[in-house]
Amino acid sequence: MVSDHNTNGNGASPIARKPVAQVRYELLTLGDELLLGLTANGHLTFIGQQLGRHGALLQRNVTITDEADAIAAQFRESWARADVIITTGGLGPTCDDRTREAVAEVLGQKLVRDPAIVQAISDRFQCFGRKMTDNNLKQADRFERGEVIPNGNGTAPGLWVDQDGKVLVMLPGPPNELQPMFKNQIIPLLAARGLLSEGESYVQIRTAGVGESLLETRLQPIFDQYGDALSVAYCAHTGAVDCRVSSPSGRLSHEQLQGIADECATLLGEDFVTFGHDSLARVCANLIRAQEKRVAVAETATGGQLAQAFTEVCGACKFFAGGVVCCTNDTKTQLLDVPECLLLQHSAVSDEAAVAMATGAAETLGAEYAVAVTGFAGEATGHGNNPVGTIYIGLFSPAGVWSKKLSYPGPRSTVKVRAVNAALDWLRRELLRIANGASITNRRSNVMR
Amino acid sequence: MVSDHNTNGNGASPIARKPVAQVRYELLTLGDELLLGLTANGHLTFIGQQLGRHGALLQRNVTITDEADAIAAQFRESWARADVIITTGGLGPTCDDRTREAVAEVLGQKLVRDPAIVQAISDRFQCFGRKMTDNNLKQADRFERGEVIPNGNGTAPGLWVDQDGKVLVMLPGPPNELQPMFKNQIIPLLAARGLLSEGESYVQIRTAGVGESLLETRLQPIFDQYGDALSVAYCAHTGAVDCRVSSPSGRLSHEQLQGIADECATLLGEDFVTFGHDSLARVCANLIRAQEKRVAVAETATGGQLAQAFTEVCGACKFFAGGVVCCTNDTKTQLLDVPECLLLQHSAVSDEAAVAMATGAAETLGAEYAVAVTGFAGEATGHGNNPVGTIYIGLFSPAGVWSKKLSYPGPRSTVKVRAVNAALDWLRRELLRIANGASITNRRSNVMR
Repeated sequence: MVSDHNTNGNGASPIARKPVAQVRYELLTLGDELLLGLTANGHLTFIGQQLGRHGALLQRNVTITDEADAIAAQFRESWARADVIITTGGLGPTCDDRTREAVAEVLGQKLVRDPAIVQAISDRFQCFGRKMTDNNLKQADRFERGEVIPNGNGTAPGLWVDQDGKVLVMLPGPPNELQPMFKNQIIPLLAARGLLSEGESYVQIRTAGVGESLLETRLQPIFDQYGDALSVAYCAHTGAVDCRVSSPSGRLSHEQLQGIADECATLLGEDFVTFGHDSLARVCANLIRAQEKRVAVAETATGGQLAQAFTEVCGACKFFAGGVVCCTNDTKTQLLDVPECLLLQHSAVSDEAAVAMATGAAETLGAEYAVAVTGFAGEATGHGNNPVGTIYIGLFSPAGVWSKKLSYPGPRSTVKVRAVNAALDWLRRELLRIANGASITNRRSNVMR
Repeated sequence: MVSDHNTNGNGASPIARKPVAQVRYELLTLGDELLLGLTANGHLTFIGQQLGRHGALLQRNVTITDEADAIAAQFRESWARADVIITTGGLGPTCDDRTREAVAEVLGQKLVRDPAIVQAISDRFQCFGRKMTDNNLKQADRFERGEVIPNGNGTAPGLWVDQDGKVLVMLPGPPNELQPMFKNQIIPLLAARGLLSEGESYVQIRTAGVGESLLETRLQPIFDQYGDALSVAYCAHTGAVDCRVSSPSGRLSHEQLQGIADECATLLGEDFVTFGHDSLARVCANLIRAQEKRVAVAETATGGQLAQAFTEVCGACKFFAGGVVCCTNDTKTQLLDVPECLLLQHSAVSDEAAVAMATGAAETLGAEYAVAVTGFAGEATGHGNNPVGTIYIGLFSPAGVWSKKLSYPGPRSTVKVRAVNAALDWLRRELLRIANGASITNRRSNVMR
C-alpha cells in the first residue's frame, strides 16, 4: 500500500544521500505502561537490533507519558533533530491513546477515517468471532498525506509519512504485530530509500566462562592494531559475554572484521562459543545434531528453564529427548530412577544427586547426553555447606558422568540464568571434546551408583 | 555512607515541598548495548514500577549512546528539567565507560579515587578468587562532593549527589546489583527526603480471558462516576489485561480506590483474577495450597514454560508436584503412560492426547490437579485441521478431566505465552469452581481412556 513516489512531492529525500551509519534514527516508545513498569520496552531491543544488523545506529530512545501534550512536544523536538523517527504504541483502541492526533498537529496534517481500514478491522473481529466496539474504529484513522502499512496480525495498521525530507514510521504496540511488520514491511521500505543497508554490518564474538574485564584484557592487544577504524562493544549476559566488532567508518571491510573475529576466536579457544546470535542452547543443538545424538535434562532449581532453553531452538524434537522438572524426592525416584537411599544419605542437593539425575534422565529418556541441575536458587534457606546460590550440575556423556558445584550470588532469577548457562556451557565443552575425538573408553567408570 | 545533611550546604532541598506525584523523575539509561538491542532495558521496567508503587511518576526515560559528549549533552538537558535524575549503567570497568567524567563536567565537580572503594573492590575479587585488572580501579572514582552507595553484589558502587536543589542517583548496570541497591538503599533515601511516599499508591485489577476493548467497555460505567479524580490505565499482556486505578490528585483515598476496584471485581466475576501483582501461577498456587492439593504439568508445545510459571512461585515445592517436558511420543508413553495406540490413532496433537497427558501427569506425579499442553506453537508445519498456533489444553481435577482446543495467531513466543496463560486461567477457574463447592461426583466420567 506504500507507493514508491514521495507523497508530498518533495522528490527523492535528501537523507538518502547520507551514509547509512549517519542517518539519525530516533525511537519514541509511547505508553504509560512502559514508564509505570507494567510492561518491558521490548521494542527498543527489537528495533535497535534490527537497525544495528542493517548498519544503522539508533541514536536515542525516548519513552514518555501517554499525554497528548507530552507526545506533541517530544515529537516536535525529535522531528527537528532526527532523519527517521519510529514511534511505537499509542495506536490502541482505548480512549487514552491520543497519539495520532498529537502527531498530526505537529505535522500540520489532518486525520481521515480510512474505509479500507474500517473494513479490515471489522473483518478481523468477525474472523475471531469477537464483538467490535466503537472505540476500535479509532484505529481506522490515518494521516491525509500518508500511507498505511497493513497489519496482518492485529487491528491497528502502521502509518508511514514522508515529509520535510524525513520519514515517520508509526507502529502498533503489540510485539506480535510490530515485529513482523517491521521486519517484513518497514525494513525493505527503509532499505529501498537508502536509509538502511542490506547484509550484516558487524561481527559478533560470543564467549562463555570468562568475565568482561578479563575478556577485554585478553582481546585488547588484537584490537589495538586497528586503532579507531575498529569499534568494539561488550555485552555481559549472566555467565556469557558478547563482543561485537564493527567499523562504522567503513574503513574495515566485512572480511577484515571477520578476520579480526577469527583471531579472537583462536586466542580464546574453548571460551569462544560462536559468531553471530545463536544461543548457547542452539550451539549445543548444532553440535549434538552433528553427532546424531540426543540430550535430556533433569532439573530442580532451574524449574523448567533449562528444558525451555532447548525447546526454544527450532526443530528441538530432533535433538531434545525431553525433560523432567522435579520438586520432590518422589519425582526423582519415580521418574528418574534416583535411588531413595542416595537422596537420604547425600541429600537432593549434592554431587551424588546431580550425577544420579543426569544418569537417570539419559536412561529414562533414551538420550546419549544429559544435563541435570539441582540446588538452592534462592528464597529457600539453603542447608549447611550449601547456602542459597549453591548449584550442582550433573553432566552425562558417552565418555562418562560428572558433577560440579557452583556458587552464585544474586537473586533467584540471576542464579537460575547462571545455572542454565553454566550447564549449557559445560555440555558445549564436552560436546566439543567428544567431537574432537576424546577417547570414549571405560564408559561410566565414574558413575556413582 | 550517605549522611543526612545536604552535602553542599543548601539546606533542605526545595523539591521536598512538592507533592510526590509532581516530583519530576527522569531516568537516563546509558549503554550502546541497549540501543543496539543487545540487552533489554529492564531498568526502565524495574525503576518505573518501584517509583509507581511509591506514588512517584517516572516522566521520561532517555536511552542514549555511550559517548561522553552525548551523555554530557543529555545530562545537562535533564538536569535542567528534572528534580530527580537516575542514571543506570556506564559505571563498568571497560574503557568505553566515560559516564562519571561526562557527568562530573556538567556538575562542575572533580572525580576523586576513593580508597575505601578500592579496598572493597579488591576484597571482592579476592573473595571470588578472580584476578583484578587495572581497569577495575576506575570503578573506585567518586564525585568530590557526593556520596557513595555501597554495592553488596558487585564492584561498582552507586553514587549520590545532592546539588542545586536536585538529586542525582547513579546506579550500576547489572540488574542483580541495581535492583537490591535501589530497593534497599535508594528508596529509603528518597522517601526520607519526601521525594517518594510510603505504601501503595494505586490498586491494580488483574483480569484474564477478556480483551482490552471489551474490558474498557464493561468497566467504563463504573469509572465514569468519578470523573477526573480517577486515573485509569490498561495493560494488555498476552491473554490477560490489567487495569490500574489511581488518583494522582489525591482526591480519592486508597480506601475509595479499593472500593472502586471491588466494584469492578464483582462486575467481572470469574474474569477477575486478583488485586495487585500476583501472577496467574501464584493465584493458582494460593488456591491449590488452600485446598492442600498439588498440581503437575505435562507439556510439549510450551517446552518447560508452564513448569517454569509454577516454579517461579516462591515455595513451589509445596504445591507443584513436578513436570514432564516431552518432545517425542516415546516420552509421553514412557513417562506419562499415554497409550501408544491413542497417539497413533488420534495423533499427539489432539483432544485425546491432551486428556491422556493431563491424566498421566496427575497419576505419575501423584497430584490431584494437572494441566497438559500439546500443539503446534510455531515454526512447525502444523497438520491438517491443526495449523500452526493450534493448542490443546488438558485439565485434570478431582471433578473430572477435559480438554479444549485453542487457536492463536502470532509468532511462537506469543503462542507459548498465550497457551501458558490459557492453561493457568482454566486451572484457576476450575480451582474456584471446586473451592465454591462444585460437586465432585462421578469422578472421571469423561476420562477418555
